[in-house]
This record gives sequence, structure tokens and C-alpha cells, in this order.
Amino acid sequence: VRIPSKATHQQTREHNQRLILRTLYDRGPISRADIARETHLTRTTVSDVMTVLFDRGLVEEIGRGRSSGGKAPILLGLVRDARLVIGLDLGVETFTGALVNLRGELRHVVELPAGGCSGEDALELVYSLCDTLMRAAPGQPVGIGVGAPGIVDSAGGVVRWAANLGWQEVPLGQLLGERYSLPVSLANDSQAAALAAFVFGEGARTANLIAIKVGWGVGAGIILGGELFQGDGFAAGEIGHVAVVEDGAACSCGRYGCLETVASARAIAEHARQLTLADVRAAFEADDPEARDAVLASGRHIGRAVAWLLGVLDVHRVLLHGSVASAFGEPWLESVRDEAGRCSLPVFSDEASIDLAKFPSNVVVLGSSALLLTQELGFSLAR
Amino acid sequence: VRIPSKATHQQTREHNQRLILRTLYDRGPISRADIARETHLTRTTVSDVMTVLFDRGLVEEIGRGRSSGGKAPILLGLVRDARLVIGLDLGVETFTGALVNLRGELRHVVELPAGGCSGEDALELVYSLCDTLMRAAPGQPVGIGVGAPGIVDSAGGVVRWAANLGWQEVPLGQLLGERYSLPVSLANDSQAAALAAFVFGEGARTANLIAIKVGWGVGAGIILGGELFQGDGFAAGEIGHVAVVEDGAACSCGRYGCLETVASARAIAEHARQLTLADVRAAFEADDPEARDAVLASGRHIGRAVAWLLGVLDVHRVLLHGSVASAFGEPWLESVRDEAGRCSLPVFSDEASIDLAKFPSNVVVLGSSALLLTQELGFSLAR
Repeated sequence: VRIPSKATHQQTREHNQRLILRTLYDRGPISRADIARETHLTRTTVSDVMTVLFDRGLVEEIGRGRSSGGKAPILLGLVRDARLVIGLDLGVETFTGALVNLRGELRHVVELPAGGCSGEDALELVYSLCDTLMRAAPGQPVGIGVGAPGIVDSAGGVVRWAANLGWQEVPLGQLLGERYSLPVSLANDSQAAALAAFVFGEGARTANLIAIKVGWGVGAGIILGGELFQGDGFAAGEIGHVAVVEDGAACSCGRYGCLETVASARAIAEHARQLTLADVRAAFEADDPEARDAVLASGRHIGRAVAWLLGVLDVHRVLLHGSVASAFGEPWLESVRDEAGRCSLPVFSDEASIDLAKFPSNVVVLGSSALLLTQELGFSLAR
Repeated sequence: VRIPSKATHQQTREHNQRLILRTLYDRGPISRADIARETHLTRTTVSDVMTVLFDRGLVEEIGRGRSSGGKAPILLGLVRDARLVIGLDLGVETFTGALVNLRGELRHVVELPAGGCSGEDALELVYSLCDTLMRAAPGQPVGIGVGAPGIVDSAGGVVRWAANLGWQEVPLGQLLGERYSLPVSLANDSQAAALAAFVFGEGARTANLIAIKVGWGVGAGIILGGELFQGDGFAAGEIGHVAVVEDGAACSCGRYGCLETVASARAIAEHARQLTLADVRAAFEADDPEARDAVLASGRHIGRAVAWLLGVLDVHRVLLHGSVASAFGEPWLESVRDEAGRCSLPVFSDEASIDLAKFPSNVVVLGSSALLLTQELGFSLAR
């Protein structure tokens, strides 16, 4: 139990508010009496906080619960659309943006083709995406969350390095913040996806969780102790550029033999001599040997990466997502699992579940919005 | 800022006590007034807590500080030997035990040769070590901390799997606890070493820290956010059995090509066709090509493991220790660094410091004691 050195009245009030908001989020619709029971707060405190939450438009009455003898209690719930956030995913092929509500529901999705777009052009495309979403928003959004590929300094709001976008040290947080006068949160796209799985998805509230994205890039998002773990330089999970092949192919990072050169969508397409992942999929389903080799080799390399992740972190919940995971599903997953099992102690591979995520395709958008929603809701979503 | 749902008077008192104890530990000798200033507690609270700490024999007067006008203030400090813990390291060659004080000073060290000892015999050897230390202790030790190789369930006090000791599911915590009527803490030896570096050593209070042990076994201890990270199954950092070589040599775990089969002391000795690490060292210093190959190959494989650790965790402080690190020092370290650099993005390898630990040889004993000392001191040593 850690307590801050001085717990002021203000802190206590804020703490109680977070506690109640969280209870509404997790357990609503719920009566005032049940909130008091769950939180161990007094009825008076609950009522006082509720008045504030009503004023802020965050809470509504949802009907009446079952009577336990006396009058049936009023049930309260969070207003799902009380706050909207702009969530962005700066993908290699497509920039996607959406207005996202407090429950992680996408209210308005905009997709702009981004293939080959880089540098200033890519930045203009981000502006154009935000402009469209700002116009579509029924009120002022509470902020902008961005999931970007590469190394993203979440504290400074800077995309430090994103090979596909041709960006180095781009202060995207500041640029968007000044343009729209809104708070901006940035994270790496794989990290944002893991956050989405933790906050809204199937990994919901699993204290430790690894979500590996295998698409045009390869990266992992790591939730530890109920929080996104970013490491000392915000690049935790950036496993796509660990060199795994001696004298391997050239990588977008300028080095050779990285995991991305053998496991990513691009690697699979090149290996299978196809132009797009859809072409590889068609060939794979037609049992084309080159396509098969390419897909299963990707799975094996990801399996070895999983073995390292398990050895380092001993986390029992591993989710795989991204365009490669969606395109090749079970056969690809089997080669991931087989190789992870072959390369790990049974204590790791037997006790961990390694599964395809049932993510919606715009999981990064969701995760980007989660970066901000947790702040707006004023509580850490960790248990 | 997280606050427990109900902060009782009891909790507040305990919190204040921890805060003061920690200030004494970090800043002592220190006056009551300075403690009050540092902790933002009132003079009265500090004096009340101090009375309790005097009664418990944890605090002593150490002299007088500089006067700032009035009477020179009395300086207080922690009594280093107020509490002693038994710390054990169940190494492959030697079982080491010691009485350790609150500052991590070893008061009495006992070493028993353990080569080839396993099963019940190994357990008897642990008892014999503890018996000797119990007799040597000036008072009742506050507990027993154990660092054991393999997979150790710290919560259950069970050594789940230790190949070298021939142990499976040995409830060592319960066995020692009943025999000596003392609290017992268990952890994996590499984890204990990382804890020692964090609590007492050169990694002191670095929030994130990786300490890799390369000896007869290979394993990492991982400190994240100022706490030992053990993962869902307590096996975080158990990287020695990730398979890294196709069709590799048989490993003690029953599988093939594990990191230990190419990087451990045993692997080096076999590869160099020598019996002991000392022999390899002599051959290495005489520029024997086989010894050189063996040592540098170990370094390269550890370097690749470091690349994975950096990619997964992005931790900027990496310490290497264990018999291999001590025996081959700088030349081995260079091959670790070169390979880690070759296999990582510059953002990882340039920003991380990868160094030989200046650990005392009995770092696992220290770490084992730290498991318990932090409990006895009643505070988490994290900042």
C-alpha cells in the first residue's frame, strides 16, 4: 500500500470521484446504494460526487432496479457519448481516424489512402484527416490520440523515428495541439493496440498482456500490472528490428536480417513473389508452395519472437493481430504456436495462451482514443 | 496518484512509519527536523514514530549535526545490525549462506561444496547450512531468504523446477519455515541478484534494470518501476532455455539448442575442451584459438539475448554478472556489446549502457536477504 506523502482534501475528493466513475464504468447500470457498498464510501459522499458527475454530463438515470422491499432504486449509468475523442491510426497503406465515445464505440470513421505518402505530405494528410473529423464532431472533442508506427516519445509528443513515414523527430503532439487547441496523446501503434485490447477488448483488465502486431511492420504492445509498459525510451515492444537472420535481407531501417524482413506482410509478399497480401492469400489458399513457405516461415519467426517474449516476461496471455494474422489465420497461428513451443520451456508455452485477437480492424484507432479517454475519465483503468 | 479506498488511522500510522524509516535509510544520519522537512510530516508525528523505532531497536543517536544558530540537533541513524537475515544462494558448485544486516553487509559467510548434490541430499545440505547460520546468529534472525536456480514460485514458496538440483515442486518455503519457525522468501537466483543490485548495489534505485547472470546457468533478473518483475508464473527472465540454435546440443532441460548450450560456463568449457572455467581462462589468456572461439561465441549469443531484452523492454541499464562475466571480463563484454549493437536498432543499443556488474561474488545471497529485509523494514525500496 503506497499513499502519497500528503493526502489533501482535494486529492481525497478526486480519488472518490475516480472510484465512483470506475464503478459506474465497470458495473453500471447501478444504484447509488450499490455504489456505496462497492466503494465503501458513505451514501452522502456518493450523492455529492454524483451531483458533480451529473453537472459534467457524464452520468444519466437509466431506469429502476429491483426493489429489495422498499422503493425500487434508481439505476445510474455512464453517458456513452458524453465525451468524444479523435483517434488516429497512421498506417502504412491507410490513415484512419474516428470519433470514439467513452465505451470505445466508433461514431464516425474516415479513411484516407496513404500509400507512399511521407514527410510533409504525410503531415498534411494527418491535418486533413483531423479537419474532417473536427467538422463531423457534434461538439468539441476532448482531445486527439494518435497511434504512429516506429519509435514514439509519448511524454514529449514526438515521433522520433518512423521509417515508413520518412519522419524523424517530428513534434506531432505540439503541431496538432497548436492547430486544434486540444490535448494530444501519442503512442506507438502496437502499444496503442495493446491498450485497446486491455481497455475495451478481449484482454480487458488482464493485468499482464502482450499483443503482437504482424502487418507491414512487426511490433508488440505490452501491458504489465494493468498499465502500458513503454520502457525507458518509450520503445518497449519494438521487436520488428531485432536481427534474426545472419546475412539477411535489407530492412527499411537500413540494417539487415531484422524480424520484419522475414515475418512482415511485405516479407511474405516478396518471398511469395506476389504484389499484395490478398494475392498471397489467394495463392496460399490454392496451395501454392511458395506462398505456403512464405506464410509458414513468417509464423515460425514470430513463434521464436514469442519464445523470447515469454522467456523475458512470462506473461500468460499473448494476442496476435495485424494484416498477416487476419489474412492467414489458423495455419499461420499453428506455425507460431509450434515454434514458440519448440523454442520455450514447457512452463512457458504450456501455461501461456497464444491466440489470434478478435480485434476490430481499427484497433489502433481505439487504442489511440484510449490513451486520452483514460485521462478524461480521470482514472487508470488498471485493476 | 492511487489511494486505497479506505485510509484508516492504522494505515496512516504505518505509512508515516515507512516514510520515516525510508528517510533514515536513505539520508541518515539526519535530524528530526530534517526528517520532518523531507517527509512533510509534523515534528510531533516524527517524534512519535521515532519513539516506536527506538523501542524496536531500529534507530540510534549518532551524534550532533551543525547548529544553524541554536542548539546543535541530534542526528539519528538506522542501527545496521538491528536485524539480521539468513540469505542463501543454492549455486551449482557451492551452496552459500550468510547473516546479512539491514545495510546488506555480510556478517558471517558459510560455503558448502554442492557439486553433483541433488534431490534429498541437496535438501539436507540446505538444512546443514541453515543450522550452522542459526547457531552463529547473535539473536533470532528475522527470516530466511533463498535464491534458487530454475523456476521458483515466490508466492507459494515452491521450487517448481531446478534441473541442476534435480528438484521438482519442492516446497522449500514450507520445509524451512516449519524447521526454523521463521518467515521464508524464495526467488530465482537471477531475480535475487537483480534485486540486490537494485537495493544495495550499483543499480541502486534505477527504476528499470536488467541484470543478466551468465554462469553455469543463464538467466536475467528484471526490475521494472522499482520492483522485481516476476511475470504471471514467476519465471520472468528465465531466458537460458530459449532455443537459439537449430539442431543444437542437448540441454539440461531435456530440449536442444537452448541459450545455455552455447553461452553458459558449461558450454564454454565443453566447446573449449577444458574441464573447468579456470582452465578455459588460462587457455584464453594464452590465446588458445578454441578457448577464444568458445568465449566469444558465448558473448555473441548473450549479445543477441540482450538485443531481444532491449527490443522487448527498452530498458537503458543492463548489468552482466556470473562466473563467465567475471572470468572473461572485457573481451567477452565487447563481443556482447558488438552483437547487441549489430542486432538492435541504434535507439536501443546506443541509449542503453551494457556493463559488467561490480557485484560482490555473493550477490545472490544479498538479493535473497533483500527479499526479506524490505519486508522487515516495512517499505518498498522503490522510488
